[in-house]
Amino acid sequence: MTAPRYDVIAIGNAIVDVMAPASDELVDELGLTKGGMQLVDGAAADDLYQAMGPAKEISGGSAANTLAGLSAMGAQCAFVGQVADDQLGKVFAHDIRAVGIDFDVPARTGEPSTARCLIFVTPDGQRTMNTFLGASQFLPAEALDEEAIGGASVLYLEGYLWDPEEPRRAMRAAIAAARSAGRKVAFTLSDAFVIARHGDDFRALIDDGLIDILFGNEVEIAAMTGLDDFDAGAAALAAKVPVLVATRSEKGATCYTHGESCHVAAEPIDKVVDTTGAGDLFAAGFLFGHVRGEDPARCLRRGAIAAAEVISHYGARPEADLAALMAEKLD
Amino acid sequence: MTAPRYDVIAIGNAIVDVMAPASDELVDELGLTKGGMQLVDGAAADDLYQAMGPAKEISGGSAANTLAGLSAMGAQCAFVGQVADDQLGKVFAHDIRAVGIDFDVPARTGEPSTARCLIFVTPDGQRTMNTFLGASQFLPAEALDEEAIGGASVLYLEGYLWDPEEPRRAMRAAIAAARSAGRKVAFTLSDAFVIARHGDDFRALIDDGLIDILFGNEVEIAAMTGLDDFDAGAAALAAKVPVLVATRSEKGATCYTHGESCHVAAEPIDKVVDTTGAGDLFAAGFLFGHVRGEDPARCLRRGAIAAAEVISHYGARPEADLAALMAEKLD
Repeated sequence: MTAPRYDVIAIGNAIVDVMAPASDELVDELGLTKGGMQLVDGAAADDLYQAMGPAKEISGGSAANTLAGLSAMGAQCAFVGQVADDQLGKVFAHDIRAVGIDFDVPARTGEPSTARCLIFVTPDGQRTMNTFLGASQFLPAEALDEEAIGGASVLYLEGYLWDPEEPRRAMRAAIAAARSAGRKVAFTLSDAFVIARHGDDFRALIDDGLIDILFGNEVEIAAMTGLDDFDAGAAALAAKVPVLVATRSEKGATCYTHGESCHVAAEPIDKVVDTTGAGDLFAAGFLFGHVRGEDPARCLRRGAIAAAEVISHYGARPEADLAALMAEKLD
Repeated sequence: MTAPRYDVIAIGNAIVDVMAPASDELVDELGLTKGGMQLVDGAAADDLYQAMGPAKEISGGSAANTLAGLSAMGAQCAFVGQVADDQLGKVFAHDIRAVGIDFDVPARTGEPSTARCLIFVTPDGQRTMNTFLGASQFLPAEALDEEAIGGASVLYLEGYLWDPEEPRRAMRAAIAAARSAGRKVAFTLSDAFVIARHGDDFRALIDDGLIDILFGNEVEIAAMTGLDDFDAGAAALAAKVPVLVATRSEKGATCYTHGESCHVAAEPIDKVVDTTGAGDLFAAGFLFGHVRGEDPARCLRRGAIAAAEVISHYGARPEADLAALMAEKLD
């Protein structure tokens, strides 16, 4: 096995976020479930956009956000996802390459357009997401570079991308490629509604021993296990994966590995502006430590620091120099 | 003369800003003049975008920013500008309509794309702008609704739009329509480079008595008059227009009218994040007071408050509730 060229290769939705502040009343009126992610078609996306205030367009996508964090810390990364040949596709490609991430999947011509996520951010910083998958759902299995996957320390997958059929096939092929090269597979559960649709698949992946590192928040762990009690759910899930990272918002995060658990407090910040990307950046910090062989406590600290940075401003990608921030905050 | 339907109708570039933090070294290396605005073609825009870090897309355009401020204070406004039928055109149209501004100019099909402005924001908050005019330069005179212009208290024009030929013709027609209806014409000088190209036209407009309210900063006033001494330049220009508003960054702003002058200090803020839109929002505050018949001191205070808000965050449109902010800060 040669030395890996990449620390992390991720497969995810290639999405541009369209973000605007919104009142709780507006989120209610529109019939949205606050804090959740729903898939919408083009017409529903247009209607929601109509109801939205002035917005900012900022590149997003869960796994892509995680890579942006990893790259900002100094990791070598590649992204696999599908954009369309349009202006938002160019924005996505520019922004991911601008932070040094390899992104080689050719833009797809014709309809539909590049994926976008309409995000209503309420005054408490919570985000409510409405995703038009667009071109993202047409990521073909042929877009994978199996040699590159075999040469990456970690393959990272987002649960969100399990919804569309073609990318799901691509992710299964990628898991097989990583496995046969003896690499690790990390997976984020993404969202309770996604688990409602695909929980059986996720549980099968875990039972088949295909997931090495699993990320989830409290709601997602409950959805996976059917156990409302956090400790019981986490223990049940932890018994099935080598590493489980459970993020718990202001209550911090816990890592379960080999029968042991380790907890980190949330990093204090002045004001939560926008929680979009909090989980993604926690995963970035954790994975960065993990690929460098650090102990779980230090991996968790990195996650907490990266998550705190991203929720202190609008947008799901880091704005601060994360490498410098880590150097300052870690011993 | 019937009561005006609009407080302000503005004609301006319909632009989406593409903004990214940048080092002074990068601005130097790219051969850009810090603090200025240069026009670039599509190829140059692509090259500059390539050199840019991860960016945010936020609707901009000088006069459109001014209207966004006016609308946020409670004024009735309409915008005239040209977007293309593409994703950034939809973003621009959405964002301006979302704040209650009427915008009825149909999107233009085919090339070129919607205008964009690549803005490098240095750590001192200064912005260096590179504008690809795109569809914006094809605003036809037929896009004007002369009846609406005749029914607006103020017609507001941006100097930036004097560069392309078709909008220049449209603006001349708009001035004639406003004049014949007995309405006021306000004009912002926009940029010293624009004055270098079109100063003779601007001076002729002023000499012909077609401008009632003129906005400019120190550099622009020097470029218009050839006088490096601010007081001398402002006095020379003030002699030719009923109202001259001279903005002077951290030194505040001065209004010259009917032989008198009135000064306002800059509104204190914690940190200058991004000066993009400072002049635009100063104009918004001033015009809001002006159309309500307030005295120059109060108009200036409104300008200072609105400008302070916009430079405290990324993007050239207000994020705070300007009406509430005015109520809080004014007696």
